[in-house]
Amino acid sequence: MHRFYAPGLAFDRAIELPLDEAHHLARVMRLKKGDEIAVFDGRGTEAAARVEAVAGRRVTVRATAVRTPAAEPAIAITLAQALLKSDKMDRVIRDAVMLGAAAIRPFTSARTEVPRAALERGGRHERWHRTVISSVKQCGRAVVPPILAVQPFREVLTSVRDELCLMFVEPASETARHSATRTSVGRNFSCADLQTLETRVPAKATILIGPEGGWDPEEVTDAVDGGMMLLTFGRRTLRADAAGAIAIAVLQYIWKDL
Amino acid sequence: MHRFYAPGLAFDRAIELPLDEAHHLARVMRLKKGDEIAVFDGRGTEAAARVEAVAGRRVTVRATAVRTPAAEPAIAITLAQALLKSDKMDRVIRDAVMLGAAAIRPFTSARTEVPRAALERGGRHERWHRTVISSVKQCGRAVVPPILAVQPFREVLTSVRDELCLMFVEPASETARHSATRTSVGRNFSCADLQTLETRVPAKATILIGPEGGWDPEEVTDAVDGGMMLLTFGRRTLRADAAGAIAIAVLQYIWKDL
Repeated sequence: MHRFYAPGLAFDRAIELPLDEAHHLARVMRLKKGDEIAVFDGRGTEAAARVEAVAGRRVTVRATAVRTPAAEPAIAITLAQALLKSDKMDRVIRDAVMLGAAAIRPFTSARTEVPRAALERGGRHERWHRTVISSVKQCGRAVVPPILAVQPFREVLTSVRDELCLMFVEPASETARHSATRTSVGRNFSCADLQTLETRVPAKATILIGPEGGWDPEEVTDAVDGGMMLLTFGRRTLRADAAGAIAIAVLQYIWKDL
Repeated sequence: MHRFYAPGLAFDRAIELPLDEAHHLARVMRLKKGDEIAVFDGRGTEAAARVEAVAGRRVTVRATAVRTPAAEPAIAITLAQALLKSDKMDRVIRDAVMLGAAAIRPFTSARTEVPRAALERGGRHERWHRTVISSVKQCGRAVVPPILAVQPFREVLTSVRDELCLMFVEPASETARHSATRTSVGRNFSCADLQTLETRVPAKATILIGPEGGWDPEEVTDAVDGGMMLLTFGRRTLRADAAGAIAIAVLQYIWKDL
């Protein structure tokens, strides 16, 4: 059953699909009047529907019955991800949405390697939003998680200070050594064990994943001072574009929310 | 410290790097005589080394001291992956290697969508091997896990029958219904709970991930008859190119082998 995003979903009248979705339905999938589809409103409601009219670029559909979408996780996990180059960022977004992330919070940090020109160029948010929709369609969710505005790392610390915040760093010794050597505070940070989270089940949490070049030691210091918990993936060094999805999945296992 | 693959690693004499690695060292990284690097032999040994000569396409290096590479997992997990289109297969291999997979076992199945022409075209294994090397260099391992020969699904069943075999399927109801309806055996299969694996820690295991179109019900039947354990990722439907890495990471958490 092909699924389409219909933010204006209603049960008492025919609705028009957004132009992107209309294009996908009529030109890519070549569906026609009378064909059965599913539509979801991006806020959790899904319905069986029938194509009522295809006229030029406009497609009208009518919801016929409520359908049950893929279950949303009980724990709202936000992935705060340092900006990566565009194809890697797409992968991060696609995977996080597939795993049920509640939101994506992109940010810039000291070692973010994305060129300033790319940051200032428009269209990035629209592209990310299209990636979200496409992943939502594929994985059966009826919720379209938001991609929040890009913030500098320091503002992320403020935005998330009231929730459980997990900052993933490279396996212990490296980071600890760097932090102690290269920041002025002269401290070693110890990483919590993932297993300690088994008895600490939050209602919501934010996971922080750094850029390809890793965290700057000052950022680690600020995060710890801001109350964040430092964690590693055991002894593994994970690539920045792969770490977010793995963190979400492992945490969902730990919190019995897979 | 830049790391290079030197299968002929020795401590009693200078060694020549393979041409690919020599190119990477001299042309891409622009390293010169006297520069310090690390080399690993792909079988678990790593060494600090010094560039001894760069002459045309040939690079000679000398190992100076043993180095400790990233720790290998205690449990040897093989990822048996139904063939995917080439960029997706590259991602699967890169991620599995990063997580410490012991081997990759590619296979064809009933719904494999990779065109026959692509399967018969040469160079695939060489490309995969280069992806493995590149991921090994990035993640700090000194072991180069093998990519086994492509087999048909039935042969995989025979090859892995003596180890713990975990076949990941889509969330329960779908598969169960299809299996009962579309195979002749008239059975429902129930999926084990991932948590049951906490008390069943193997020395080695194979994870089976199907193609983008999912498993054919006959394949599920054959797998169960062959002694494989069926599992889902809880309620989540994961894309074929993302499922393998997530399965490995969650199992390593479950088996305390992260």
